[in-house]
Amino acid sequence: MGASECQPSTLESAHRLGRLLAEAGWVVLTGGRPAGVMEAACAGAKSVAGSLTVGVLPTGPEGPVSAQVDLAVFTAMGEARNAINVLSSDVVVACGVEGPGTASEVALALKARRPTVLLGAAPAAVAFFRTMAGGGVPYEAETPDAVIEIIQQQVRIPRWRPI
Amino acid sequence: MGASECQPSTLESAHRLGRLLAEAGWVVLTGGRPAGVMEAACAGAKSVAGSLTVGVLPTGPEGPVSAQVDLAVFTAMGEARNAINVLSSDVVVACGVEGPGTASEVALALKARRPTVLLGAAPAAVAFFRTMAGGGVPYEAETPDAVIEIIQQQVRIPRWRPI
Amino acid sequence: MGASECQPSTLESAHRLGRLLAEAGWVVLTGGRPAGVMEAACAGAKSVAGSLTVGVLPTGPEGPVSAQVDLAVFTAMGEARNAINVLSSDVVVACGVEGPGTASEVALALKARRPTVLLGAAPAAVAFFRTMAGGGVPYEAETPDAVIEIIQQQVRIPRWRPI
Amino acid sequence: MGASECQPSTLESAHRLGRLLAEAGWVVLTGGRPAGVMEAACAGAKSVAGSLTVGVLPTGPEGPVSAQVDLAVFTAMGEARNAINVLSSDVVVACGVEGPGTASEVALALKARRPTVLLGAAPAAVAFFRTMAGGGVPYEAETPDAVIEIIQQQVRIPRWRPI
Repeated sequence: MGASECQPSTLESAHRLGRLLAEAGWVVLTGGRPAGVMEAACAGAKSVAGSLTVGVLPTGPEGPVSAQVDLAVFTAMGEARNAINVLSSDVVVACGVEGPGTASEVALALKARRPTVLLGAAPAAVAFFRTMAGGGVPYEAETPDAVIEIIQQQVRIPRWRPI
Repeated sequence: MGASECQPSTLESAHRLGRLLAEAGWVVLTGGRPAGVMEAACAGAKSVAGSLTVGVLPTGPEGPVSAQVDLAVFTAMGEARNAINVLSSDVVVACGVEGPGTASEVALALKARRPTVLLGAAPAAVAFFRTMAGGGVPYEAETPDAVIEIIQQQVRIPRWRPI
Repeated sequence: MGASECQPSTLESAHRLGRLLAEAGWVVLTGGRPAGVMEAACAGAKSVAGSLTVGVLPTGPEGPVSAQVDLAVFTAMGEARNAINVLSSDVVVACGVEGPGTASEVALALKARRPTVLLGAAPAAVAFFRTMAGGGVPYEAETPDAVIEIIQQQVRIPRWRPI
Repeated sequence: MGASECQPSTLESAHRLGRLLAEAGWVVLTGGRPAGVMEAACAGAKSVAGSLTVGVLPTGPEGPVSAQVDLAVFTAMGEARNAINVLSSDVVVACGVEGPGTASEVALALKARRPTVLLGAAPAAVAFFRTMAGGGVPYEAETPDAVIEIIQQQVRIPRWRPI
């Protein structure tokens, strides 16, 4: 998860994360729009042979979709689809928490007690989400490689079965 | 699309349709529950090597999912997810229109003017949906093989790109 | 519930129904758009002092709302909001079943086993919905006055508490 | 908006806010559950004659509803309904940001650029939401009375028309 407009370093990070997730054999699910973290993470994944990317879009089929998305799910529900993204992910990784859309996804993920990782989040975001009661507590990671380590050692998601 | 409880002939039909869709290189998307047409169509698809099945579920991740579903999208939105199924499908095929859930999906598909095929529908369903104004007009098919012919000749969906 | 484009007789019927519902002390909930049955039913209700009309809209707050709606609920979910309309109504009345949007609402209402009345529906709609398995069975009414009688005698909804 | 489990001082604050909003002639919309800030704000509103309270619930009609809610809208969409609450409110007031559900609503409100007030929020919440880019900037208030002043002077919502 991540913003459609973000800093170049966040995009690089998202691209590398997408690649590492695909190399580890996992499906990469994003908001599917042709912008920002969504596109970068999917592009990273699609640089790996045999990868699979899923986009859960805020629009119907008339809306724009990233060319890096293999499978588009059209909700036509705007930001309400953020709840679907979170529930459909075995692990929610926020690449930066630079905008309110991503913040809503982190909050929904913690509310639903999904495993959640804050990657490269600003101190204010970490301070806010890690002190919140009534939900899960997010992991913190400085690099995409650290995210993979957390998923493998703490969350223990199996590789996706090959198709 | 189809009912969770239905006649044996509808299940056979759904299974064959799933297999034919997968053989034609298309992704099979259903409501994802371990029952009825959803499970039968996915099982048919999974009898084909390299197939991909998607389930868009009414529940969150705590709910039951068909073991024939490769990719589960958890909406936790009950029947409101029917709108997502319809918008995310290049062609909507109703395997029988035996229950109100399927009827709602056919109606939503026509409203959104998605290509829609009624497979083995009772005369009352055909009469109702084919005379309705303000939306698309469904195709009719007697057999799964006829559905494939309609998709290839009338709707012209390209094969899914191999992953 | 009813179509945004419909016959003049359906509009008259919707207007009278809205008035009778308001006179009976009930809240009138529609899809809230400034068109067709939605607007006519709300206008009928608002001709009664002390009435309350609720619109559950497919758009966000930037979309058009009928001036006859007292309270607008903005879903920004397109037709997925039909599921909300149905679940939020003590009785679902379809004023004509002339379009696929209304058909989806009737189907969702039967699926959820909400009390449902088909007012002035064509024979094909009645034949279809009354023979469907796996959900409730709709009442039929020829006139708005007959709808009120059904609600009072069969469904037994209490008057809304005065505010 | 606010948590279902929260500190006594937050409940008092929510109750007073509900009362002041109703006295100012506004409709009070909450998540509608019989708990926490939702119930307290509605109870405060219902202590005022002629008030109107709306609950937009995560459940269907089988779920629990606060007895202080006049009009229940049943979404059966879980936390995805938070997007509806935010879009349907002329002003979003968060009574404390103590849990992730409320945090998601504040984030969605800022994303949609709805006028948003943080009432009695902890410093970490204020620091997080006020430095976020790509959305609106929330107002801050220490007391319910200050919220009313902000709405009247900054947001300028007209009184709801009497019904």
